[in-house]
Amino acid sequence: MSASHAHALAHAVGATAEEPKFPLNQWYVAGFAWELKDKPLGRTLLGKPVVLFRTADGKVAALEDRCCHRALPLSSGTLEEQGLRCGYHGLLFDATGQCLEVPGQAKVPTKARVQAYPVQERDQIIWIWFGSASQPQPTIEPPAYEVHSSGEYVFEGGIYHYDAPYQLIHDNLLDLSHLGYVHLRTIGGNASVHMNAQMRVESDDTSVKVVRHMPGSQPPPTYSAAYPFKGKVDRWQEIEFLVSHLRIWTGAVDAGTDALDDPRRGGFHMRGFHGVTPETETTSHYFWTMATNPESNVEEVKAKVVEQTALTFDEDKVVIEAQYKNMLGFGPRPMVDIHVDVGANRARKIIERLRLASA
Amino acid sequence: MSASHAHALAHAVGATAEEPKFPLNQWYVAGFAWELKDKPLGRTLLGKPVVLFRTADGKVAALEDRCCHRALPLSSGTLEEQGLRCGYHGLLFDATGQCLEVPGQAKVPTKARVQAYPVQERDQIIWIWFGSASQPQPTIEPPAYEVHSSGEYVFEGGIYHYDAPYQLIHDNLLDLSHLGYVHLRTIGGNASVHMNAQMRVESDDTSVKVVRHMPGSQPPPTYSAAYPFKGKVDRWQEIEFLVSHLRIWTGAVDAGTDALDDPRRGGFHMRGFHGVTPETETTSHYFWTMATNPESNVEEVKAKVVEQTALTFDEDKVVIEAQYKNMLGFGPRPMVDIHVDVGANRARKIIERLRLASA
Amino acid sequence: MSASHAHALAHAVGATAEEPKFPLNQWYVAGFAWELKDKPLGRTLLGKPVVLFRTADGKVAALEDRCCHRALPLSSGTLEEQGLRCGYHGLLFDATGQCLEVPGQAKVPTKARVQAYPVQERDQIIWIWFGSASQPQPTIEPPAYEVHSSGEYVFEGGIYHYDAPYQLIHDNLLDLSHLGYVHLRTIGGNASVHMNAQMRVESDDTSVKVVRHMPGSQPPPTYSAAYPFKGKVDRWQEIEFLVSHLRIWTGAVDAGTDALDDPRRGGFHMRGFHGVTPETETTSHYFWTMATNPESNVEEVKAKVVEQTALTFDEDKVVIEAQYKNMLGFGPRPMVDIHVDVGANRARKIIERLRLASA
Repeated sequence: MSASHAHALAHAVGATAEEPKFPLNQWYVAGFAWELKDKPLGRTLLGKPVVLFRTADGKVAALEDRCCHRALPLSSGTLEEQGLRCGYHGLLFDATGQCLEVPGQAKVPTKARVQAYPVQERDQIIWIWFGSASQPQPTIEPPAYEVHSSGEYVFEGGIYHYDAPYQLIHDNLLDLSHLGYVHLRTIGGNASVHMNAQMRVESDDTSVKVVRHMPGSQPPPTYSAAYPFKGKVDRWQEIEFLVSHLRIWTGAVDAGTDALDDPRRGGFHMRGFHGVTPETETTSHYFWTMATNPESNVEEVKAKVVEQTALTFDEDKVVIEAQYKNMLGFGPRPMVDIHVDVGANRARKIIERLRLASA
Repeated sequence: MSASHAHALAHAVGATAEEPKFPLNQWYVAGFAWELKDKPLGRTLLGKPVVLFRTADGKVAALEDRCCHRALPLSSGTLEEQGLRCGYHGLLFDATGQCLEVPGQAKVPTKARVQAYPVQERDQIIWIWFGSASQPQPTIEPPAYEVHSSGEYVFEGGIYHYDAPYQLIHDNLLDLSHLGYVHLRTIGGNASVHMNAQMRVESDDTSVKVVRHMPGSQPPPTYSAAYPFKGKVDRWQEIEFLVSHLRIWTGAVDAGTDALDDPRRGGFHMRGFHGVTPETETTSHYFWTMATNPESNVEEVKAKVVEQTALTFDEDKVVIEAQYKNMLGFGPRPMVDIHVDVGANRARKIIERLRLASA
Repeated sequence: MSASHAHALAHAVGATAEEPKFPLNQWYVAGFAWELKDKPLGRTLLGKPVVLFRTADGKVAALEDRCCHRALPLSSGTLEEQGLRCGYHGLLFDATGQCLEVPGQAKVPTKARVQAYPVQERDQIIWIWFGSASQPQPTIEPPAYEVHSSGEYVFEGGIYHYDAPYQLIHDNLLDLSHLGYVHLRTIGGNASVHMNAQMRVESDDTSVKVVRHMPGSQPPPTYSAAYPFKGKVDRWQEIEFLVSHLRIWTGAVDAGTDALDDPRRGGFHMRGFHGVTPETETTSHYFWTMATNPESNVEEVKAKVVEQTALTFDEDKVVIEAQYKNMLGFGPRPMVDIHVDVGANRARKIIERLRLASA
């Protein structure tokens, strides 16, 4: 068993108090822009219950989801011009967590405030900063994601809740060889083609990139349904792991046309955003969008691609949750590594290093 | 965080063995008279599984809900002329817990008996005594509740099961200022009127009384539906906390007519009985009746008042269970007190003192 | 409380690490022959998740239900000519647990294998051996059960999952006096007849036999529905406890005709097989068949007998699960023994001795 796997299981049982459970001093995905309308939204992120909402001027805010009076979740409250009002006794809080009003009494107690979290909306993604004690405020901007805003792509997305730790989702996304067994009916295609694909793995201190090329292969069902390929295709899969999220750019050109390494390659593109945010040590949020570039029938093709993507995510969820349940049932046990694990194992090393470094 | 709140949370995690978990040497509500007909009723009270039943002469009885032979709940058994017969091997027990018969063997083993609890029916409420080791038998009569028997009121009731400790229900009932935020659609009315109501709190060693007057206010929807008020009303709320239950007498007269402090005041009355009995340290039974005094259309008005009352109790249950779930999620944390907490805090002190005194 | 009851409860909370939790070096029922077709079957037995399947030549195989690569249950995989393929990354395992193929890489890692369990199919029952460290391989053949294969009987069966430890099911089956209270509507008949039946208990180191005769009794509903008795009947109940299963041979002849002790007695026969296999220390599998010998309307009578049997098992499940839940609620407490417990208590002594002896 690799050290990081052992750690993941140890965490599931009970972690030490001193070490952070997740890498801190990071922007994590808290949600999507379109989730925040006229109601507050409660969501537990990195073990902390948070209420997300928009202020009257449209800015996003994030507070600890607990009224300082009697602990009701503030996400049960209502939005007003000045902020968020608790649904029990009506205490009113602004975006900084300051209590502005205690109904029925003139003076607001000085201790009446709740913690606020740094939060930013960028390219339709809402990012939240979980800092360490020594670095509570963000030191960098949240990541850009131009795919959402460049106009080159149409996209849609969704959110999954996983009864499994977040790193099992990383493992899954960093190793697309499972497509041939888990996603046979959609984006999978021939299993042995996937398993025997040319693979290149690069990494640095905070990212891993896995590139796989499958030249001269049969287009899988989703591809054929979305794009008028003439016959065999040259497929690529580019997976970038970036601690808080993964960017997966897959696609295909008609076999022997464009160079797969050229980012301006034509053909059919699927660009996936995969925000993987721990809910707790044993459960996760998975925020995804899928963008594509149809040449015609844009809405129809987009709907088809998104539908097929959601189907594969359903399949992954079943597998990953079964995997985690089995890991819990068996307890810590050695695991045998195979060739496709290279990328996932590097990502686990990065997480582990950043986790320990953020104490 | 007040000491009693800290204690409630500590209990949720694991209490010390020596101290009683609840005030003992008290009558608690076990149920209502109409619940006990021709079948035994199993109910856990103060952490103890109890079977309640009526003997052939109509008296109520309460035994430990566990056959002394192989531990089947006696509440799965059947009532006979002589007592309660276990549904597994047929052992027969009388109201004192004595085994009268072991089918198929001549002699009843001397150890074949189960614990009986003192229980009394009074004014349609079934009261059970949980004594301490030094005071196992009741030293006083169970409380009277004439509202059920005087003939001045019509009433109905119900039972809620709460996934929350009983003191959170006390808190809720002792502070009716939440009506303006939680019960806007029924008995609430204007929030700021509630929050700014004149409030008087009195207490002694075993009770707390909170009186709130809201003169010249708008009648809330339930009131208007039940009584032909001419316009604005003078409202009163009288809340009596009595360890095992609360009595809440609310109502209104046409503004400027009767004195609110006069118990013979006219107008519209709602008299609530609220028996709050711990099921366990983290769950509760809530036994309620609502009595009223319609001048005409008695059944119709009663049905409306009871229906509206049940609606508000539904709303409270949602809030209180969400509050407790959040308290568990966050763990012990300070709470900021505000002016409306005076009554609830006094009640917590009484409970704490009686709990420790009943060791 | 008897020592074995105390032990059962201690186990429910947390057993010592050194002692085996169940008697090892035994064949246990893993399933029925007809359960294994073209899909693998996952089932936890004695605390161990196992995948059962048939190889291409029809033989049964049992492996640890966990891929050695990333812990997915192998029971989520698919059957192929050469064995069982994992549903995540496609590792292929044979019936011995050896990994035959890692897709996409030439060499199979030497550590790539999973544990296999000895398993045998006999008389339509699938038996699995759970050995101790010193005796991992079976030393004896699994038990024969000719009732399934002799052609004298027709039979059907089923499987129940119990939220209760397996010994509570033994207790229930070894004491058929409960028929008069639990199974009044089916095979029970008159309660006092059951409780006052002549009973003989014999036992040796690994088995207990309880024989009860009820001469001159009224045939119970199931009997009358299945066989043309002329009036009163002489009934017998023969219960054999054999650690991993019980064989219960009940029936009746017209009163005063055949000798009840003669195994060639005529009349109406019900021969029950009851494989009771611990799933965990607190949950169980109950594999049963019921065989009978109708003189005419064979299928119709069989269907009726099996249906009535299933009804009684439904009733037992309700009682036993309620009993266990109550035992957990009350914690370890003394139990009063009565005369009908003799057989069950001897079985508990056998289990306890074999459990400790298999360390």
